[in-house]
This record gives sequence, structure tokens and C-alpha cells, in this order.
Amino acid sequence: MTFQGMDIVSIRDLSREQIEQVLERSERMIPYARGEKSSKALDGKILATLFFEPSTRTRMSFESAMMRLGGRITDLGVPSMSSISKGESLADTIRMVEVYSDIIVIRHPREGAARLAARFSSKPVINAGDGAGQHPTQTLLDLFTIRRIKKDFSKLNVVMVGDLKYGRTVHSLAEALSSFGADLTFVAPTALQMPKETVKQVEKAGGKPKLTNHLEETIADADVLYVTRIQKERFPDLAEYQKVAGMYRVDKKLLREAKSDLIVMHPLPRVDEIDPEVDDTPHAKYFEQAFNGVPVRMALLNLVLGGEL
Amino acid sequence: MTFQGMDIVSIRDLSREQIEQVLERSERMIPYARGEKSSKALDGKILATLFFEPSTRTRMSFESAMMRLGGRITDLGVPSMSSISKGESLADTIRMVEVYSDIIVIRHPREGAARLAARFSSKPVINAGDGAGQHPTQTLLDLFTIRRIKKDFSKLNVVMVGDLKYGRTVHSLAEALSSFGADLTFVAPTALQMPKETVKQVEKAGGKPKLTNHLEETIADADVLYVTRIQKERFPDLAEYQKVAGMYRVDKKLLREAKSDLIVMHPLPRVDEIDPEVDDTPHAKYFEQAFNGVPVRMALLNLVLGGEL
Amino acid sequence: MTFQGMDIVSIRDLSREQIEQVLERSERMIPYARGEKSSKALDGKILATLFFEPSTRTRMSFESAMMRLGGRITDLGVPSMSSISKGESLADTIRMVEVYSDIIVIRHPREGAARLAARFSSKPVINAGDGAGQHPTQTLLDLFTIRRIKKDFSKLNVVMVGDLKYGRTVHSLAEALSSFGADLTFVAPTALQMPKETVKQVEKAGGKPKLTNHLEETIADADVLYVTRIQKERFPDLAEYQKVAGMYRVDKKLLREAKSDLIVMHPLPRVDEIDPEVDDTPHAKYFEQAFNGVPVRMALLNLVLGGEL
Repeated sequence: MTFQGMDIVSIRDLSREQIEQVLERSERMIPYARGEKSSKALDGKILATLFFEPSTRTRMSFESAMMRLGGRITDLGVPSMSSISKGESLADTIRMVEVYSDIIVIRHPREGAARLAARFSSKPVINAGDGAGQHPTQTLLDLFTIRRIKKDFSKLNVVMVGDLKYGRTVHSLAEALSSFGADLTFVAPTALQMPKETVKQVEKAGGKPKLTNHLEETIADADVLYVTRIQKERFPDLAEYQKVAGMYRVDKKLLREAKSDLIVMHPLPRVDEIDPEVDDTPHAKYFEQAFNGVPVRMALLNLVLGGEL
Repeated sequence: MTFQGMDIVSIRDLSREQIEQVLERSERMIPYARGEKSSKALDGKILATLFFEPSTRTRMSFESAMMRLGGRITDLGVPSMSSISKGESLADTIRMVEVYSDIIVIRHPREGAARLAARFSSKPVINAGDGAGQHPTQTLLDLFTIRRIKKDFSKLNVVMVGDLKYGRTVHSLAEALSSFGADLTFVAPTALQMPKETVKQVEKAGGKPKLTNHLEETIADADVLYVTRIQKERFPDLAEYQKVAGMYRVDKKLLREAKSDLIVMHPLPRVDEIDPEVDDTPHAKYFEQAFNGVPVRMALLNLVLGGEL
Repeated sequence: MTFQGMDIVSIRDLSREQIEQVLERSERMIPYARGEKSSKALDGKILATLFFEPSTRTRMSFESAMMRLGGRITDLGVPSMSSISKGESLADTIRMVEVYSDIIVIRHPREGAARLAARFSSKPVINAGDGAGQHPTQTLLDLFTIRRIKKDFSKLNVVMVGDLKYGRTVHSLAEALSSFGADLTFVAPTALQMPKETVKQVEKAGGKPKLTNHLEETIADADVLYVTRIQKERFPDLAEYQKVAGMYRVDKKLLREAKSDLIVMHPLPRVDEIDPEVDDTPHAKYFEQAFNGVPVRMALLNLVLGGEL
């Protein structure tokens, strides 16, 4: 059950005990992540960041996590400006980067790229999202955010809304939440509903997810409302996108029906899915959720690199 | 009069006493800025840099300042490669970045953007230039450069030449110099003269600025010649630009009439405004001025973050 | 024979004794480059990286080297996003960057750019490749790689294959190897053979290089096979490129004739010149060669900046 040297490609790479261990360790990281305490746990260590598609939030969050632990960062840079533009294979890029670093974080538009990277690298690889595939640190920070506020997952009523088909983050989060005992409701236009495979996984984990097109009817019973952006870039067909964009919008009017302790989450960036008027309500937890990326990634970096904190 | 946690959006945010305090603190930073002494005053602190338009000099100068104090940097990256391209609002970008850092430096093409950022951020924000608006650290380093060499602002004859209309740096510098007792002369083509509002502010501060089109006639009496580039990118109309480009050019011939201790300044980058033959004369102070950006920004970062140096 | 403050623009700037000194120092850096030991030898020092053309490997290798010694990095950024796009001269860019740093690494598409930079900078400049010109740290890491494995250069049979005309790295390596007593064979299509000037230099150093178009006939006697990519971007004429691309390809079949201790090197990135099936053979040393860039650059940074390690 040791983490040292481990690749984190999918949330399924982690046992339930390991997930618990990350969440507990993350809690301990909070004052360091806030800059209230300072650590040199990863002094002398180098993190290589490889973002084959832009993800400012994830990149800055990993950078901040590494720096809060005293470590350094080297970045591959924009792919069109790098050796990739000279025709280098991903395997060769990885074998180059691993000699300059102690751990690699990779984001890639192609599903399976992170697994490939892990196979070619002798240094640990953390998947920061690969296409429609996995994004395990997002799942961990989502779990951490919910548990910090709600204490327990069991019997928690979690409503997921938006693009549940292409929205990468909801798939592994749904599976994990279900295995931890939460009840799930999936709200999406029919064309963007949760993939059958994920529904099956949720059921296998013991859940009985409800599927619907209507957000309003789910609000009153929700403990957690997890909103996702309907991302234009995930749609092969623009016409399909335009039909569903803006179908759900969380605003104060909608939240009037909600429990007073409902929390609203979003992996960000948002566009129109959550009205800025919600930001000042006690429901809004998406900025706290973004912050939680730092202690969770600190915990992971620390565990994988064997830092003492 | 404490700086800790303060936003630095405009030079007007600082009292005269605070400006003096920054200039004195900057002096103390010189050996650290040169790398002759080493400091860990901001060890563990993270500076986030947000450059929505390129400004290599300002960015590298802030980076160097932060690193000379032992701090770290995380950069938002090129906007077209970041979450902004996904339609995120500036407010959301700021609320994202603040959770990853202890202080934010922002450069933005739109006037008022830095003030907006400061409103949404709970971490201190330093304006590194917002469109035609303010650029307070440039003003401070200009003041520092003049005072280091001339000791006193009072009765100093300062000639400003070039684009005084769109040239952001000269507006707040003129106001500040006037309030410190300097005499001002504004040299520009009529279409690019100092805005009436700035002239009024200068007069309000007790100055009686002279306005002229002719550089030659101002040289003999000048103690400081502050040259600015006529920037194509600030002109709404290209034809207007072409009429005035290259109208003033500082070369050895012009400087023959000058006092032996005249100093020539320029915020850089220059194109044709100052002939490279001037670089080797004792008048040329623009590279020293560029260096002074480091101790001045060190002083500010240190004061705002409460570093002990 | 002191290195401190020295510019490293060409391998010819270094005496034979200095090259030996770098190679010996590099050996000592290995455990630090691997992250097994940690050093603060360059704590407080700032390296400025200026890549006017992309070179991911060289940039990351310098970054890693600087960080492994406890130093910091500030990067000029993409030229189109920097003050260069405002029309700044290279001389002014250098004079800007030197005030923000303690040492400058420059890569530039124009031959002679690094020498120009060194002339304008009061801080040491290391050339990381200038057009068809020099790339001295590549030469040093190639020499280091060969000596680590082969112990002695004398009577070593080195075959260089690929683009020997535009391939910058082979010119200075050939000269250096020849002066150290190695025997050289140059394999290239006639249009891309080693320039006469380099052949003359090699002969002047005491060598009698063989020139041929046929790779197969050179394999059996080779101790080192140095492969280079035929780079499209170096060709003024696309038609000329297409005639020679893919002419030589190193695969297991070719290597069947080779000595068991033949080593295959490549400055990387590779495209088709070396079949990936070679990667798992004991001949493949190109990834080790890439890693060696770190200790060699650590040694140089350390020597030039006077670090104690």
C-alpha cells in the first residue's frame, strides 16, 4: 500500500484505502497550501509538466503544490514550439523529459496517452487528464471537497448536471461516490446523458442512479449539485452542441427550492452554467474546490516522491 | 501607513510618505538585486504573473525581483492557451489564480482591469500596466532612477518627449515629479501632446509645465530628458501614426548643446528614438533605469508581503 | 585557466585542458543530476534562457542543470510575444536580460548571434546553438558520453552519418574528436557531406577522415555510430530535402554486422533515422547521452559562476 514511485493514471489505480490515505494527507496539507506554514519536503526535487492541451487551472495548481513543498518545476512548453513539432514520438518525448525530472505530470488530448507515458517512463507519471479518459487528481479533489464539508459520503444525495457524456470528470467521480455509498442523480439532455458503461459501473458499486432531463425536480433533495460545462471542444458536431448549450443554468431562483446546506460544485472554468449571483451565497463551493486542488496534489506529490510531511 | 496586504493599482494609491518609503527601501535592495548579497525574505511565497499582453521587461523584472528574495513564480501563460480562451471572465480567472499564490501581478490591455482584479482578489494585486491607464511600478522606478543620480527633485528641469498622449508612463510620472517640485517641459507633435487632464493635475500639484513641438530648444536647460517610443499599437489610426513616427531622435549631435550632467532616460524597448551612439555617452541612463526595476519591485514585494529585509 | 565569468560561445574557446576539466567535473555531477544527492551550490543565482528558436531538449536540460544546483531560471519567452516583436535589437534585448540575471543561455537561428550577445553582455553567455554555427555544450556532452563508455578517444573508430552539411553538432564534434586522436568516417549523400572546411580542420588536427555514401560498409569496424537527423528546416530547397530524406536508417538488421560494444548516439529528437527496435539493444546510448546533458551543463554553470561543488 505504499505510494512511492507509483503512477497515478486512473482513480482505479488506487484502492479504497489509498484514496482514504490521500484525503487524510490532504487535510494535513491545508495550512501549507495556504502559505501559512512552509515546507521543504520536496526540496531538490523537479516536477516536469507536459500539457499537450491547455489547462491553466490544473497546471498552476500542480505548480503551486510543488512549490509549496519546496520543489521545482520544468515545463515542456507549448507543443507547437517544442521538439514534438519536429515529429518526435510521445515515447521519445517522455524518455527525454524523465532524465530532466523526478516526476511527470501529463495532460493530453488523446485517451490512453498517460498510460503510454507511464509505460515508457521510469519516473512516476501523474495523469492530469487524457481526452475523454481519466483525470484522477480532479476526482480526488472533488471527493476531498465533499468530505470536508459533508463529513460522510454515505446516503449523500449527489446530483450531477450538464455534459455527462463528454464531461470527463463526472465519470470517475460517479463511480467513486457510488462505491463510497452516495446516491446519484444524472441530469442531462438525452444526447449528453451518462454513458451506459459508467451507469453500469455505478450499479456494480451498489448504486441505483436516477436519470432525468429535468434539473428543477431534483433540486429539493440534493445535498451536492455538481455542475459541468457543456464543452464545445468535445463535440464532433457543432450543430449538436448548439442544440444543448445553455439548457441548464444554476441561479438564485433555482436554488430557492434547495436545502440550506446544499453545496454547488463545478470543476471550472464556467461560462454560463452558474450565474455569478450564486457566488455570494453559502451554496457556492467551487472556488474552495479549486483551492482544494493544491492540498490534494501536494498530498499526492508527497506520497509518490516519498517526501516527509 | 503600513503596506502589508495593500493593492498597488495606481501611483495615487500611495501617499508621498509611502513613495519615499519605497524609494528608501529600494536603495537597500541594490546589492541583493545585483546578486552580490542573497536573501530568503520571501522564501515559501508565490507570485502569480498574469500578462494578458506581452511585456517581457516588466515580467522578467518582477520574476528577478521575486527570485532575488527567495520567492517562487507561477505564470498564467499565454491567454490564448489558457482558460480565458474557454470564455472565462476576468473575475473568475483572478479567483482561480489567488488560490495558487500569495500575490498577483497583472498586465492587461484594458484600462481598469487591474482595479477590477484587486476587487475580486483577497490577495494583494500589483498593476503592471493596464492599457492607457496606470503602471505604478514604472513610475516608482523612474523616480528612483532620477533621485539616485540627482539627489533632489526640487527645481529639476525635466523634459519629456515623444508620445505624451498614449504613452502611459509619462502621465503619472509627470504628476509625481510635479508634486515633488520638478519643472516640466512636454515636447510632442500637437496630435500627441500631454492630455489636458494630466496638464491640469500637474498645475494642481504646483507646476507650470511648458508645452512645445521643438525638442532642440529645450535641450540646453534640461537636467533629465525622458524619451518615449511612439507606439504604433496605441494608435487607432495607422495614418496618424505614420505622420509622427521618427519626428524626434536623440543623437550625439542633439546632445552637443546639453549640460554635461544631463541624463537620458527611456522606459524601453526603444526603436529609433535614441541612436545607439548615445549608449556609450555618460548621458545614457536607460539601462541603469531598467536595472532599477529590480530593486524597486523587490522593495514593493517585500513591503506588501511583509518580508523582513 | 579559470572559467569564472567566461563566455562559452564556441568549443574553440576552450583549451584541451579546459575540456578535460569540464569532463572531469561532469563526472562528479552525476549523482546530483540524478537527484540522488542535493546541492545548493548556485543558490541565489539566476539563469536567463533566451530561445529565439525552439529547442525543448536543450532548454529543459539547462533548466534541470540549474535547478539541481539550487539556482533559479527566468525565461525570455516566445519571441513573438516579447519586446523583440516591438522592433528591439538583439543588443538591447541582451542588455535588458543581463540586468535580471547572473548568466545567459542563448539559442538563435542566426549564426554569430551568440558571439554578438557575449559582446554586449557583462554577464557570461553560453551559446546553446546559433544557426549553422556552434553548439558547444552539445559537443561537450557528446565527448563526455563517449569517454564515459569508451574510456579513451585514441584510435576510436567514429562513424558519423546523416546530414553532415547542415548538422551543426557534427562539425565541432569531428574537430574535437580528431584532436583527441579518434579516427573518423563521414557517411552522407554527396549533397550533404561534411563541409570542406571541417574536413580540413580535422586533417589539421592530425586526422585522416574517410568519406563515403555507404553506411553498411562502415558498420563492422565502428566503435561509435553517431547518427543525425536530416532536418527539413535546414534546407533552403524542399526538393533537395525530399531527395535525401530516409536514405539511412539504423535498425537491428544493419547492426547485425556491428561489434558487440558499438555504441549508437543521436543528438535527438529522432524521426526515422533509428528504428525504435534498436532502443532495447545494448548499442542504444542516445537516451543516456540526453541525460548526460544535465551533468555537463551543471559542470559548466558551476565553473562559470564559481559555484563550489
